[in-house]
Amino acid sequence: MKPTATEEDILSVIDRIESCGAKAHPSRGEEVTVIGAVGDREHVQRLNLEQHAGVEQVVPILKPYKLSSRQFAAHGERTVIEIDGRLIGGDHFSMIAGPCTVESRDQTLTTAHAVAEAGASMFRGGAYKPRSSPYSFQGLGQEGLRILAEAKAQTGLPIVTELMDARDVEAILEVADVIQVGARNMQNYPLLAEIGRTGKPVLIKRGLSSTLEELLMAAEYVLKEGNPNVMLCERGIRTFETAYRFTLDIMAIPMLKELSHLPVIVDPSHAPGRRDMVLPLSLAAAAAGADGIIVEVHPNPEEAICDGPQQIYSDAFGAYLEQVERAAAVAGKVLSAAA
Amino acid sequence: MKPTATEEDILSVIDRIESCGAKAHPSRGEEVTVIGAVGDREHVQRLNLEQHAGVEQVVPILKPYKLSSRQFAAHGERTVIEIDGRLIGGDHFSMIAGPCTVESRDQTLTTAHAVAEAGASMFRGGAYKPRSSPYSFQGLGQEGLRILAEAKAQTGLPIVTELMDARDVEAILEVADVIQVGARNMQNYPLLAEIGRTGKPVLIKRGLSSTLEELLMAAEYVLKEGNPNVMLCERGIRTFETAYRFTLDIMAIPMLKELSHLPVIVDPSHAPGRRDMVLPLSLAAAAAGADGIIVEVHPNPEEAICDGPQQIYSDAFGAYLEQVERAAAVAGKVLSAAA
Amino acid sequence: MKPTATEEDILSVIDRIESCGAKAHPSRGEEVTVIGAVGDREHVQRLNLEQHAGVEQVVPILKPYKLSSRQFAAHGERTVIEIDGRLIGGDHFSMIAGPCTVESRDQTLTTAHAVAEAGASMFRGGAYKPRSSPYSFQGLGQEGLRILAEAKAQTGLPIVTELMDARDVEAILEVADVIQVGARNMQNYPLLAEIGRTGKPVLIKRGLSSTLEELLMAAEYVLKEGNPNVMLCERGIRTFETAYRFTLDIMAIPMLKELSHLPVIVDPSHAPGRRDMVLPLSLAAAAAGADGIIVEVHPNPEEAICDGPQQIYSDAFGAYLEQVERAAAVAGKVLSAAA
Amino acid sequence: MKPTATEEDILSVIDRIESCGAKAHPSRGEEVTVIGAVGDREHVQRLNLEQHAGVEQVVPILKPYKLSSRQFAAHGERTVIEIDGRLIGGDHFSMIAGPCTVESRDQTLTTAHAVAEAGASMFRGGAYKPRSSPYSFQGLGQEGLRILAEAKAQTGLPIVTELMDARDVEAILEVADVIQVGARNMQNYPLLAEIGRTGKPVLIKRGLSSTLEELLMAAEYVLKEGNPNVMLCERGIRTFETAYRFTLDIMAIPMLKELSHLPVIVDPSHAPGRRDMVLPLSLAAAAAGADGIIVEVHPNPEEAICDGPQQIYSDAFGAYLEQVERAAAVAGKVLSAAA
Repeated sequence: MKPTATEEDILSVIDRIESCGAKAHPSRGEEVTVIGAVGDREHVQRLNLEQHAGVEQVVPILKPYKLSSRQFAAHGERTVIEIDGRLIGGDHFSMIAGPCTVESRDQTLTTAHAVAEAGASMFRGGAYKPRSSPYSFQGLGQEGLRILAEAKAQTGLPIVTELMDARDVEAILEVADVIQVGARNMQNYPLLAEIGRTGKPVLIKRGLSSTLEELLMAAEYVLKEGNPNVMLCERGIRTFETAYRFTLDIMAIPMLKELSHLPVIVDPSHAPGRRDMVLPLSLAAAAAGADGIIVEVHPNPEEAICDGPQQIYSDAFGAYLEQVERAAAVAGKVLSAAA
Repeated sequence: MKPTATEEDILSVIDRIESCGAKAHPSRGEEVTVIGAVGDREHVQRLNLEQHAGVEQVVPILKPYKLSSRQFAAHGERTVIEIDGRLIGGDHFSMIAGPCTVESRDQTLTTAHAVAEAGASMFRGGAYKPRSSPYSFQGLGQEGLRILAEAKAQTGLPIVTELMDARDVEAILEVADVIQVGARNMQNYPLLAEIGRTGKPVLIKRGLSSTLEELLMAAEYVLKEGNPNVMLCERGIRTFETAYRFTLDIMAIPMLKELSHLPVIVDPSHAPGRRDMVLPLSLAAAAAGADGIIVEVHPNPEEAICDGPQQIYSDAFGAYLEQVERAAAVAGKVLSAAA
Repeated sequence: MKPTATEEDILSVIDRIESCGAKAHPSRGEEVTVIGAVGDREHVQRLNLEQHAGVEQVVPILKPYKLSSRQFAAHGERTVIEIDGRLIGGDHFSMIAGPCTVESRDQTLTTAHAVAEAGASMFRGGAYKPRSSPYSFQGLGQEGLRILAEAKAQTGLPIVTELMDARDVEAILEVADVIQVGARNMQNYPLLAEIGRTGKPVLIKRGLSSTLEELLMAAEYVLKEGNPNVMLCERGIRTFETAYRFTLDIMAIPMLKELSHLPVIVDPSHAPGRRDMVLPLSLAAAAAGADGIIVEVHPNPEEAICDGPQQIYSDAFGAYLEQVERAAAVAGKVLSAAA
Repeated sequence: MKPTATEEDILSVIDRIESCGAKAHPSRGEEVTVIGAVGDREHVQRLNLEQHAGVEQVVPILKPYKLSSRQFAAHGERTVIEIDGRLIGGDHFSMIAGPCTVESRDQTLTTAHAVAEAGASMFRGGAYKPRSSPYSFQGLGQEGLRILAEAKAQTGLPIVTELMDARDVEAILEVADVIQVGARNMQNYPLLAEIGRTGKPVLIKRGLSSTLEELLMAAEYVLKEGNPNVMLCERGIRTFETAYRFTLDIMAIPMLKELSHLPVIVDPSHAPGRRDMVLPLSLAAAAAGADGIIVEVHPNPEEAICDGPQQIYSDAFGAYLEQVERAAAVAGKVLSAAA
């Protein structure tokens, strides 16, 4: 309450709080009175107390998310997701690798075989691509999905691929083992709810200026529909620094694990936008306790249609993975592979 | 090029630039050589020159947007959009007012009559609401659209309302005179393209961490489909400052007018999230040359289902509008009304 | 408290709060218990309650500043500062104009006469310049101060000039009517305290990533030493947007006036870094209720040693000032001049 | 140049560039002409070309720093600094540990012995403390320096301590082996130059919204005075995320090593402001290739005068250091100790 609030203001706020079924606990100090409101967050927010006479400020204490909250988890356990025999979360470290974009059958299959042989846990590749410019290549679409299906058939690796439009959900479901929600769609609520209804595992990328709370609320849209298979992905946020495209928020790893029971994956490719920083960022993420990495790999990045400079060479992938495994070991994790 | 680049590196980069039809202009200095590449931006970007031996940095000079660029405008003229006889852009100042959310027939019609009588140019109200929490009220949907249609029938005011899901486009088209794209959907490219194909006027809100360049690229997705009726809307960006919800970027007004021929509208309600700042921000926007304001108004904000604290009272709207008109006059603009 | 906190944890926290003389007010809900602590903010913070068993989060409610707070002001009045007969604050609008840097006697006196004739309230000019690069011009120093003294002698305008180093305070005091603290020194506490002890009016520029709370805490360092003559200055903050150098935070004007009784000045030159945006930003600031503007003016900006592109032409200053006065009038203010 | 620039504009810009001794290289395209200017950056910037008729934009290509640049380093070697037999940089990993603040002789000596026995490379502790609030404890000052001297005498560990005011430089020099420049003083140029003149090793913390380029320019102020012993320190930047105090920029490690030859140290304590995140962030920093860590340690953090929640327990320091060494080993580094 404001220092100028009258006794009448205070009593009126207390009445209003109790009118929605919550309990009011006033603490009267020399300078100001603080009123605690204990009850359902949504109900209390609808009271619009900020507008009440004498109110200085409303400070929500409880988190707005529930199902994604660590406190919600049964016996405080962390979520471990199984995909074709690979485990994600817990003590398992997942390496999801593949090209930014499915450009051709040849490029895709070459990469898939390279990362499968080196020991990757899953294969990634985009058939639908969100591009800032309408003049840029927008992905191969359904033809891309067919190529991904072939990659899976040949290597046995589960497929991670992005869904941009709820109208494509049927087509994606035929191929994807994990549906990726891109950073730009993190708050596309109809899309999230649609994915929630499929029950399919989903990897949600953090929006480039989304708070961790908003990321957990996006997960909540999926979980609420009854789909428990959600992975959170940190991929870099927007800051004032222009030396890189985005700033990888390494602190998101331990903080998301503190707040939530869901697995946390890191994308080390998009933030720097350049290959030479992918290894140190991957090592940092693994050492900080990430449950996995989703990295871009290409057999010939100079010829890549998009994001070439950040894709690592498929023939260097084996050595890369070995080093990342060493860093994951420092955090007590082992590489996830088919049983 | 890097200081360590060899003559061979330089010649090879020149070859590569010219291979895509562009022209290479090397400038050789004592310390470094800079190579200008003059040609199609997309073609040059696909060369992935960042990865070429000896290359230090690639700095794009030309803007990636075309149709939204001021240089593109015929005879350098600014876009003026006509909606039911109201003009938006040029010397006209548009006042778009109405509730955050269509909550009920009564609340909506009361507000519509109040703002119509005071002289508003158009009426706003949300039937589909993007909410961070799946537990919050998500809007009345089609029922809300019917109420908006009634508000238009009674007051004659054109309707501005938000489209969140491409699957709702038909329903929205029956009511909306201007389709609003919310900040969270600014980079929902399938939605933008769909709206582009309708030809209907559209107001695109800037994403909360989108650059002006990205906003113009979002406009480009609509313009490219042949729909020239695009308004840009500044509504606050995300910064480190926690004293307000978002930071209204007043500089976007003169800068967007420098970069583009499209009208620029300002939303003074969402950034502060509190009523007492709506007037000073509206005056600032009008004085800085905005082409209009989209503001939230409610007959009884204490009872509003969402964003009550930021909605101004419908019975204070007339006085508010008068003051804003005075500020717009300083920038040489007059209120837009039906002819 | 955490949902897992025991009764013992709760009682122990209550004990600890009361051990420092504050009062504890527990509110017990179904899920969690919230304990209000009412007492001296500094004392409670020293308890390190975040570390106590069972504590989830410590949320400070009271503001950390006192003397700069609006609640502190006698009878809720706003501070009005008098400088050589000019009034700053209240209904008065101050126009502080002059070159970025004192480059020469001729350039300085020419500008001073131009802005004096047009009706400026005070004259600004830098003798000591903080420059990001040690290779850039660092100001004329004491020679610059002498030229400023001459400008004052000839025009009668009070002088605003920057102090960067506490060791220069004596020299500055001989000339300055207002000491400017630059954005980079906003948290240079020894410097602020030194200025506090002089009693001289001071204009404190907000650091480029300082919150409004931090700005008010910087003011507090001066006020605490017994110097009440503090002006706050918004000059643009650092955000992700690269279309301009800094993002002018127009919302700081109404918000600082809500939080504090101190006058608020706006610098429209540094954020855009370009002349064509200075007028619209000045109009916006004046319309939003700023108590004044500090703007850069040069007789020949193409030849300026620093920040040429943002300085307005001294021969265009009169027309500029006239338009700004019109915008200030919308906010109910009149230009401040010598009595 | 703008598309509307005339041939005369172009020739005039070329003349102007060559007037300062630089060379102009025009590249004429169909739409626009780009003019490369090759010469001294400072000279070209003083031309104020942005203001010239027909000029659209000036894009600096060369970096503004020289002595801190990796290209400047003799034979491309990295700087390794020796302090009392400990090596900083190269393959050496330095662990700088100690309390936030020197609170008492007992607390300081206890901590110093604990970290010395566990194998720390140097001892840190603040005698002068920059505090946002003038009402907070400001450090023990000279008494604190005396206690630090005793800690060194007893343990042999070199001392790292902060200098806030150029007037205290003599006192600091008697005790400090490394002078720390705090984040708030990163752009306090008189202070940096003063430290440059001492020749003493210095650790410069990155300002909380300083770019890497600005950090290197701060280093340049020290290097230019002939002091080559500069360490750069990443300690978290300010972003929109409110889940932590600051966001640790892990990417700064590989990027600073790409741009500069100077050692890079990471402070994992201030960004989270909480103890449980110090270990994962330390592991991440070490794995990403940092040259060392500066961490806060306290024998009894619950009683700490400031920043208690982020200080790790001195009796847990040994186990902490062991894990960090394992992460540093992944990046090929070994702990630095006295020869």
